[in-house]
Amino acid sequence: MSANKFVALARPAPALSVRLRLSEVAALVHGQLVGDEDPWITGLAGIHDAVEGDLTFLAQRRYRAALKHSRAAAVLVTPQESVDRPAVRVGDPALAFSLVLRRFSEATALSIPRGIHPTAVIDPSVRLGDEVAIGAHVVLESGVEIGDRATLLPGTVLRRDSRLGADCFIHPNVTIYPSTRIGDRVIVQAGAVIGSDGFGYVREHDTLHKVPHLGHVVIEDDVEIGANACIDRATTGTTTIGRGTKIDNLVQIAHNVKIGRTSVLCAQVGISGSTEIGAGVKLAGQAGVVGHIHIGDGAVIGAQSGVIGSVPAATTVSGYPARPHLKELRQRAVMARLPELLDTIRALEKRLEALERGNGGERPS
Amino acid sequence: MSANKFVALARPAPALSVRLRLSEVAALVHGQLVGDEDPWITGLAGIHDAVEGDLTFLAQRRYRAALKHSRAAAVLVTPQESVDRPAVRVGDPALAFSLVLRRFSEATALSIPRGIHPTAVIDPSVRLGDEVAIGAHVVLESGVEIGDRATLLPGTVLRRDSRLGADCFIHPNVTIYPSTRIGDRVIVQAGAVIGSDGFGYVREHDTLHKVPHLGHVVIEDDVEIGANACIDRATTGTTTIGRGTKIDNLVQIAHNVKIGRTSVLCAQVGISGSTEIGAGVKLAGQAGVVGHIHIGDGAVIGAQSGVIGSVPAATTVSGYPARPHLKELRQRAVMARLPELLDTIRALEKRLEALERGNGGERPS
Amino acid sequence: MSANKFVALARPAPALSVRLRLSEVAALVHGQLVGDEDPWITGLAGIHDAVEGDLTFLAQRRYRAALKHSRAAAVLVTPQESVDRPAVRVGDPALAFSLVLRRFSEATALSIPRGIHPTAVIDPSVRLGDEVAIGAHVVLESGVEIGDRATLLPGTVLRRDSRLGADCFIHPNVTIYPSTRIGDRVIVQAGAVIGSDGFGYVREHDTLHKVPHLGHVVIEDDVEIGANACIDRATTGTTTIGRGTKIDNLVQIAHNVKIGRTSVLCAQVGISGSTEIGAGVKLAGQAGVVGHIHIGDGAVIGAQSGVIGSVPAATTVSGYPARPHLKELRQRAVMARLPELLDTIRALEKRLEALERGNGGERPS
Repeated sequence: MSANKFVALARPAPALSVRLRLSEVAALVHGQLVGDEDPWITGLAGIHDAVEGDLTFLAQRRYRAALKHSRAAAVLVTPQESVDRPAVRVGDPALAFSLVLRRFSEATALSIPRGIHPTAVIDPSVRLGDEVAIGAHVVLESGVEIGDRATLLPGTVLRRDSRLGADCFIHPNVTIYPSTRIGDRVIVQAGAVIGSDGFGYVREHDTLHKVPHLGHVVIEDDVEIGANACIDRATTGTTTIGRGTKIDNLVQIAHNVKIGRTSVLCAQVGISGSTEIGAGVKLAGQAGVVGHIHIGDGAVIGAQSGVIGSVPAATTVSGYPARPHLKELRQRAVMARLPELLDTIRALEKRLEALERGNGGERPS
Repeated sequence: MSANKFVALARPAPALSVRLRLSEVAALVHGQLVGDEDPWITGLAGIHDAVEGDLTFLAQRRYRAALKHSRAAAVLVTPQESVDRPAVRVGDPALAFSLVLRRFSEATALSIPRGIHPTAVIDPSVRLGDEVAIGAHVVLESGVEIGDRATLLPGTVLRRDSRLGADCFIHPNVTIYPSTRIGDRVIVQAGAVIGSDGFGYVREHDTLHKVPHLGHVVIEDDVEIGANACIDRATTGTTTIGRGTKIDNLVQIAHNVKIGRTSVLCAQVGISGSTEIGAGVKLAGQAGVVGHIHIGDGAVIGAQSGVIGSVPAATTVSGYPARPHLKELRQRAVMARLPELLDTIRALEKRLEALERGNGGERPS
Repeated sequence: MSANKFVALARPAPALSVRLRLSEVAALVHGQLVGDEDPWITGLAGIHDAVEGDLTFLAQRRYRAALKHSRAAAVLVTPQESVDRPAVRVGDPALAFSLVLRRFSEATALSIPRGIHPTAVIDPSVRLGDEVAIGAHVVLESGVEIGDRATLLPGTVLRRDSRLGADCFIHPNVTIYPSTRIGDRVIVQAGAVIGSDGFGYVREHDTLHKVPHLGHVVIEDDVEIGANACIDRATTGTTTIGRGTKIDNLVQIAHNVKIGRTSVLCAQVGISGSTEIGAGVKLAGQAGVVGHIHIGDGAVIGAQSGVIGSVPAATTVSGYPARPHLKELRQRAVMARLPELLDTIRALEKRLEALERGNGGERPS
């Protein structure tokens, strides 16, 4: 989610199959071309590891010095930035860079051939959209529906009555349980599991009876789900991931959770059963949330924090148990002063003893 | 594990293939039918999202008001509860509801056809029980044994010499390493890995030598293992999961861990190597336990807590490092009062200074 | 990583296909045979669960008593240890034991037949080394290269242009994304995902635009990656795992992370984007590290700690936010004394009041 994530370490090995004139880049990002030259852009890279032909970008002032030494052929900059090479001025260079990345990557994505691999196992009742790509060893059980232009990579299993919208991209070895509903343009990274049974048991004496899970999972449009993430089906009703929400790798979403639109759940976050999360919420890495609570729109949950009660909208919380972030910071500051506090108290005791001795040595009982 | 997990969000899309008279429900749960009507039950739902024909249940008083507005056709209630519609009185409505859920889900589960999919790869030495279901692209290596009525869904791999008991249900894309022993009625959710090499290395100068893992994993009867959970094989000997224990998604169990009966490990819990966990233990979400310790029967480990020493039986611990829960709560309470404490100390200092001034301005050295 | 991980619980079921004379063991570990006997060693086990014919080892004094009651046929001991049975004296018995484990396990590993399973789907452009083993339902896309003697178990997918070095061992259901570079002797446990898209979005009004990830992942020689672990590809450039580094189950490595040589990442650790980790670093279980920081060579990060700033080389940190371990321990000690501190302050107040009363009852304003 950070703007300078593009600072990379080494040159990607594979050559890209696209090249653009810098003027085409300017048109793509609605920016202004600077300089008389119009070089070919043959690659994209961070400031430090750009090579000849690469486009880079400058989003933060502290990277200005690095730009001077960069081998990039051209750079995306803010309107007020001075430049030493061909450039495109644009309001948000990081956003513009991601648009160019997309333009380059689309050419790559299109290279996945349309059609159905002969080793795929597809029930006769399955309804396939136009121009789908169904990879090797994919399994589509009875009643499955696949939208137009959807891509399913090898080893993915869609169990009976699942529906996948148009333009979805499902990476390898994903498992989608029965009756899952997935909208359009959803991306699922490899190994993710959608619709597994919720973790519900009723204890009777020494036995845990499994609570069957008859509900299902609804994934709305434009959601992305990370590698090896898990989303449990509902006991009854649905577990719902709202439109445009992004879920990182190894995240756990329990049964009957409902998440609103364009929220962001970073890696290894865990949400317990029946909790409702609003729109535009951000949960940082490894945060945990108990069940049956509500997190308001726009709330921010700090990394590794443990949320044990509802959080109002637009509130930032952190720590365990999670509390308003400023309060948490103050408490941490006080705690850091504890050793000093001990010294103060010991000094007070000594002074008190001295006074008591002066008053005849008596101490109150 | 909570009783009100059934509060769901929306109507499951697929119609269920079963319907029961309410009198049949009463017989199933050993309850008492209330009222003269005997409606058809065609679905199951939480109080808030029940629709016409649904059975719901009332386990907690605070949902009484919600029941009044519920569209449910009938309700499971405790014996003393007054009702406004057809009902079944029963000692534990949540348990009873789960029994009805099971009755409905069994009809669904039976729809998986018995037999072996032609794309499954099964070594000639494999011994299959009666009425097994082996899905597409399943791989069973040499020496594998599969019990009667076991179900293996697509993409699951059982490596050589593994044994699976009767009535097991293995979801898609599960990997079971060599020589794993799995009892009867075990459920494994998608993507789980059982028997991976333990994380053991011996450092020699600048090299980490891998410690080979010749042991294996034993899963006793009635265990359930969550999606993408990992259980490592033992170095020598076994990693053991006791009868009836339930393991949630993304849980990590290291080599040589031994877990007793009917313990519950919530999502994203991690247990380090060689630790022993007793019977009836509950580990809440994201808790971590170091290696080589013992957690006594019936202990409860709080969410996100970090256990760095053995825990006696029937003890509740929380925090990092984990300590008795009441002690942890007290400490948190004191910490919350720290800013106030600082004020108190400053006030004491002022009063002391005033006294010292009154005594001639002398302060002890 | 601990030396007494070998303390196991029960006898592994499968018979091993190797047996060695104790004199052969002595030669293998460069140790000294003790006693006149030269028994056959037919198995390996921890002190407590060894049976007839087993070799065990004694690495820590506290297990001396246990050795007396062990049924092991022979034992690996340090040079100064007295023994009651056939033994081999060697400088590091745990290391020696792991060498014997390796000797036994090699015989087992060799049993995977070389060749290509007929259900594997291999693009004509794929270049295979000599003596590879390609399991059932493996998929190798165009441009993939597989080194000599590499083993790929069933269900694993290597996407286009990935390269795998010699002697690699890839367990079932692993997904390797396009253009991944993997060195020699790399082990990948089941379900791991290498090269998934990084979690990067640019927010524009109410929309999160996906940042395409054109970079890739580089795994150097001798790395091991745990079950269901995830390593994201770089935005541009590479995510790099250095030679000999070991990554445990369910670990998350974000885009553009760079890890040095022979570092150890225990289970469920999470590393955020663009962070650089040095050589010989140890991250204990469930630790989390924010993005864009640097962890110096030889640093040790405590279990469950949250690292929010760079850590100097050879430093041990713990807690949240992570700080030098001794400081953290001191603070915990002070916090444990907080209730007592409250009592002290209350007592001081009383004594002060008594003095004030003695001085005429006046208190400073």
